[in-house]
Amino acid sequence: MTLDAGSISSPAVTSPPEQGPAPGCFTRGVVVVKLGGAAGIEFDAFAADVADLVRSGVRLVIVHGGSDQTTRLAERLGHPPVFLTSPSGHTSRRTDRETLGIFQMACRGIVNQRLVEHLRRLGVNAVGLSGIDGGLWIGRRKDCLRAVEAGVTRIIRDDYSGTVEHVDTRVLEALMAGGFVPVVSPPALSTDGDPINTDADRAAGATAGALGASALLLLSNVPGVLERYPEESSLIRVASRGEFDRLGRVAQGRMKNKVLAASSAVIAGVRRAVIGDARLDQPVSRALRGEGTVLE
Amino acid sequence: MTLDAGSISSPAVTSPPEQGPAPGCFTRGVVVVKLGGAAGIEFDAFAADVADLVRSGVRLVIVHGGSDQTTRLAERLGHPPVFLTSPSGHTSRRTDRETLGIFQMACRGIVNQRLVEHLRRLGVNAVGLSGIDGGLWIGRRKDCLRAVEAGVTRIIRDDYSGTVEHVDTRVLEALMAGGFVPVVSPPALSTDGDPINTDADRAAGATAGALGASALLLLSNVPGVLERYPEESSLIRVASRGEFDRLGRVAQGRMKNKVLAASSAVIAGVRRAVIGDARLDQPVSRALRGEGTVLE
Repeated sequence: MTLDAGSISSPAVTSPPEQGPAPGCFTRGVVVVKLGGAAGIEFDAFAADVADLVRSGVRLVIVHGGSDQTTRLAERLGHPPVFLTSPSGHTSRRTDRETLGIFQMACRGIVNQRLVEHLRRLGVNAVGLSGIDGGLWIGRRKDCLRAVEAGVTRIIRDDYSGTVEHVDTRVLEALMAGGFVPVVSPPALSTDGDPINTDADRAAGATAGALGASALLLLSNVPGVLERYPEESSLIRVASRGEFDRLGRVAQGRMKNKVLAASSAVIAGVRRAVIGDARLDQPVSRALRGEGTVLE
Repeated sequence: MTLDAGSISSPAVTSPPEQGPAPGCFTRGVVVVKLGGAAGIEFDAFAADVADLVRSGVRLVIVHGGSDQTTRLAERLGHPPVFLTSPSGHTSRRTDRETLGIFQMACRGIVNQRLVEHLRRLGVNAVGLSGIDGGLWIGRRKDCLRAVEAGVTRIIRDDYSGTVEHVDTRVLEALMAGGFVPVVSPPALSTDGDPINTDADRAAGATAGALGASALLLLSNVPGVLERYPEESSLIRVASRGEFDRLGRVAQGRMKNKVLAASSAVIAGVRRAVIGDARLDQPVSRALRGEGTVLE
């Protein structure tokens, strides 16, 4: 099984050249953890585990999204969510200007601050950020989205979404040097200075790469990549570089993004990426020990 | 005119003892600017002025509220705002748990991120924070609010509001040391770990005091404290410590809070506080030059 160089060997996880010191020189040993927001996730268990790890000296950067909260808030505000399917079958949220504002309120105003509040109660000196703050996450806004509807492809030009291409780690470094635990949410910032909806898994992967992190953990409501989804006993336990492409083809739906995030991070120099289960106790510690699908 | 020691000589603007180095040892010369959100304020002029000042080496901490946005969002969400009048005539927003969430979405998700986005477009390396992040603003939640309604005083026990009593400046110091411009919004954090609605003028004053700032600027849609409100020609140009109490009695409505914030900051060691006009061009530079009501 060879790596298809075109698909994942050019990960956009480098830091911009103006960043100063070499990426990762302050941040070796950091662990980037992305927490999913779907049903079944034991948020209390996650926070307690984070608090234990921080107390024992592990340096963490936490990343999260806010998709569920965005959907709920959009419905309450009478601007219900629309999901687009690309010609390749990828599903994404239609992010018009109004949805972008709702997305920011949900991610930044609700989910991020609840996480920070909860972690602080457990003694973690957490600081919330979005990808805008300090120019942390920069990506190109997709100037043209193709969406398939009833077999017809239409083109959408006013969407506010894109993928993180550069990570300026300075704000994370400043906070970590001060002993704080950064908790980061979308949006990212486009190269034109607009906020953009961005996939938090991919952003977490790019962040881990730019920091030269020792591990990237992507935790959600499945045990990892399943050979025969949804059969949990078919968990793929480990994949080395030569197998990343096959892993991407096996993965279903949103798991494809996680595999792309994890494999890109490993190719960018992160020692190990783990796609793990957030529904268990000690979910971070378990993933750190290699429970889940390990990419290395 | 003597200072009534009971009313404002014990400002709660000290940093907690665990803060490490003496307050202000990294932050002498910092200017704390609070921007109001009312109609008529020239936001573009504010941001352009901030960008010029930052480029010329002035170190700023920006504070803002989100009252108008909170009201609008609350109405859209079908949970319209309620304002309480205390027996002493002070008006405040009734902040039940639902309103607290709306307040966080408005302050943190909308106003703060728009300010950060806008400043970044002008080259300011801004980072948004709330008073929760890094435990920046700590206050005691009011366990019992008295509200007068149609002549009857009732007691409200489930309100989430309070006044900032301690400022832990470490997160500001970490960010400023990294060259970032902090942009801070409510809520604060209660001593029990709950987010609380807090007055942003008072919080800005407490922050200036704790930082040992060289100036506190409180900018809104009036020229300063008016001897005969709303007659703008009756602007009081300067007040020294012995006159702070009289200034507080002259001030009307929300201006009382600004006078309290400004006078407390000066008593805590801030060289000068200016209550100035945000409706003009270069509003920050003007206030820095002493346009408005100067307390010193």
